Amino acid sequence: MPIYATTDTATYAPLDLPQPYLLFLGDVTHPAYAKTALGLRDWAPERCVGEHRLDGAGVSVGLPAMTPSQARAAGARALVIGVANVGGVIPDHWMPALLDALANGLDLISGMHMHLADIAALREQARRHGRRLIDVREPPPSLPAASGRKRSGKRVLTVGTDCALGKKYTALSLARALRELGVDADFRASGQTGILIAGRGLPMDAVVSDFAAGAAEWLSPDADPAHWDVIEGQGSLSHPAYAGVSLALLHGSQPDAIVVCHEPGRRDMLGYPGYRLPSIEETIELNLLLGRRTNPAIRCAGISLNTSQLSPNEAQALIASESARLGLPVADPIRGGAALHALARACLDTAP
Amino acid sequence: MPIYATTDTATYAPLDLPQPYLLFLGDVTHPAYAKTALGLRDWAPERCVGEHRLDGAGVSVGLPAMTPSQARAAGARALVIGVANVGGVIPDHWMPALLDALANGLDLISGMHMHLADIAALREQARRHGRRLIDVREPPPSLPAASGRKRSGKRVLTVGTDCALGKKYTALSLARALRELGVDADFRASGQTGILIAGRGLPMDAVVSDFAAGAAEWLSPDADPAHWDVIEGQGSLSHPAYAGVSLALLHGSQPDAIVVCHEPGRRDMLGYPGYRLPSIEETIELNLLLGRRTNPAIRCAGISLNTSQLSPNEAQALIASESARLGLPVADPIRGGAALHALARACLDTAP
Repeated sequence: MPIYATTDTATYAPLDLPQPYLLFLGDVTHPAYAKTALGLRDWAPERCVGEHRLDGAGVSVGLPAMTPSQARAAGARALVIGVANVGGVIPDHWMPALLDALANGLDLISGMHMHLADIAALREQARRHGRRLIDVREPPPSLPAASGRKRSGKRVLTVGTDCALGKKYTALSLARALRELGVDADFRASGQTGILIAGRGLPMDAVVSDFAAGAAEWLSPDADPAHWDVIEGQGSLSHPAYAGVSLALLHGSQPDAIVVCHEPGRRDMLGYPGYRLPSIEETIELNLLLGRRTNPAIRCAGISLNTSQLSPNEAQALIASESARLGLPVADPIRGGAALHALARACLDTAP
Repeated sequence: MPIYATTDTATYAPLDLPQPYLLFLGDVTHPAYAKTALGLRDWAPERCVGEHRLDGAGVSVGLPAMTPSQARAAGARALVIGVANVGGVIPDHWMPALLDALANGLDLISGMHMHLADIAALREQARRHGRRLIDVREPPPSLPAASGRKRSGKRVLTVGTDCALGKKYTALSLARALRELGVDADFRASGQTGILIAGRGLPMDAVVSDFAAGAAEWLSPDADPAHWDVIEGQGSLSHPAYAGVSLALLHGSQPDAIVVCHEPGRRDMLGYPGYRLPSIEETIELNLLLGRRTNPAIRCAGISLNTSQLSPNEAQALIASESARLGLPVADPIRGGAALHALARACLDTAP
C-alpha cells in the first residue's frame, strides 16, 4: 500500500505514517544492518517506544525490549522493520513476529526492496485484522512532470561530493538548528530512512525518470514566505550512476541555498574506484551553474564535513582551516555547536 | 509482456520485435495523432507491409490497405498501434480489429500509456491464439545501476537545446549516413517511436531514476573498436522537467561525440513559457562539461538544425552562416545532402 492518498492527478496529500513505532531488529548480528533503526533512535526517539529482537540478535539500539502486544499497550501503532539484510528479502523465520504484530494491532512498515504486500501470508493477516502494510519505497502514484513554476517559501538542499557521506544527517541537523533559531523549518525526506524519521516524504530513487523533477516539486510544496524546507539531497552531480537523480532533485527543489556535504579523506567515489571525488569548489560551482536554471538566486550557504574519522581536535582544526580557505561557514553537524548554528544562519542570509 | 529476455540480473538480451508490421491507424482524423505510423513509414518502410484503417479514419500513411488476414498472408508478424490519442487509452471500438489481428496470427505492439496486457479481452484472445502483447514503454526488468566502466566501440549521442526538435531523426539520419560512408553503425533507440523503427531499444522515460544511467549503459554495449552506436538523445540538460533523464543518458552513453540539435526561432522551451532556450554554445559547453565525467575525450562533432519552418534557400543560408559562426559542421538531416555527410565525417574525426 502506498503511503499517499490521491485526490486527483495533480494533487497529493502525504499521509503521515502511523506512529510511534516498535523497532524490529530481527536476528541481525552487526550494527551496519541496523542503520534504519539506529537512525530512528537518534533522530526520532520520541517516535520509538521500544525494540523487538529475535533470539540470536546481536544488535540492540538501547530501547526497552517489548513484544508487539506490550508495545501496543505502550501506544505503538506500527512495527518498523529497522534492519536490512543482503538481498533485501524478508526471511521466513521473521514471519511469526510480523504476523504477531498484525494480530496485536500494529501496522507494518518496511523500507526493504521486497514488498510486504507481495507476501500472501502478511496480506491475509493484515486483511483479517484490519491493518496496513506500508512500503516506504513505493512512490506516490501518478506524479506529474515538473512544471518549473516558482513556489513560495524558502528552501535549502544538501548536496554532496559523493553518496553516503552525510546529506541526510546534515539536513536533519540544519532543520533542528533552524528551529532552535526560531525559524519555521521542516525536514523533507527524499530517501527511506529519512521518510521513517520524518513520518513522510518521497523515495526519489524509486521514481520513474520522467517524473523525478516533478517528484521534487511535490516534496516541497508552496509554503509561507518565511518558511524553510530543508531538503535531503541524493547522490552527487558527479556520480557516474546517480547524477541524474541529483539533477532532477536540484531542478525540482529550486533551492535558495545549498550546503555541500563532504567527507575529508575520501579520494574515490564509493564503489567506483578510479572515479575521483570532485573538489568542494567544483561541487559548489556545478550545483550553482545547474541550479540557476530553476532558481537564478541560488547561493552556497556553506559546507558540511563528515569528520567521524577524525579526533575532536583534528576535526576542529580542519573545520577552521577549510572555512578560512573557502571563505564559507563550515560545520560537522554531528558535532553540532556554534559552527552548526553559524551554518544555519548562513542559509537564512542567502534569502533576498 | 516486456520485450526483453532476462538471463541473469546483470545481462540482458534485447528481443527483436516481431516484424514486418501492419500499421493500425484506428479512426484518427489528424496526422498529428499518427506520428508513430508516419515515422515507421519514413524510416522503416521495409518493415511495414500495409496499413489498417477503421471506417471514418481521415489519415493514411500511403501504404496498401490490408486486413489482418491479408497482412499475415503478406508476411506481417505484428500489428502496431501506430496512433496516439488524448489520454493514451485504447477505445472500445478499436477492440474488434485488435482481437481480429490476434486471431489471424499477428502479435500486438503498442507504445501507448495504457498497457495491452491490462485489457482482459486482449489477454484472453492472445492466450487462446498463442500470440504476444508487447508494450514498448515497458523497460527491461532488473536493470543494474551504472558501473561507469568504459566500454569498447565508439558512440555519438544527439543532444538538444529542448525536447521535440529532431534528436531522433538526427540520430537515424546520422546512422544511415555513417553506413553510406562504409562505417559499421547502429541506431540506438531511447524512446518508443525509435524502438518501433529499430525493432529494439529502451524507453528511457520509463526507467526508475536510480537505474537510468545503467539503462543507458545497457543500451549501447561493448562493441568492435571500429563500430559506432548512434544514440537517440532525450530532453535537454536545460529542461526544468527532464534534465535528469538527459544527464543519465549522457553519463551512461559515454559518448565520444555529441551532435547538438536545435530548432532556429524557438525562443522558449516547449510548454514552459518563460524558460528561454539555451544557446547552441551554452548547450555544447554544458554537455561537454558534464559528459567528461564518464568520457574525458568527449567532443562536439557539429550541429543539427531543424529548418522545417524555413524555405530551402533560407535553410541553406542559415546552415552556412551558423557553420561559419560556430566553426563546426552544420546540417539539417531531413534535407540531407553533402552537409549531412560532412557532419557524419566530423563524428568520425573525433575518434582518437
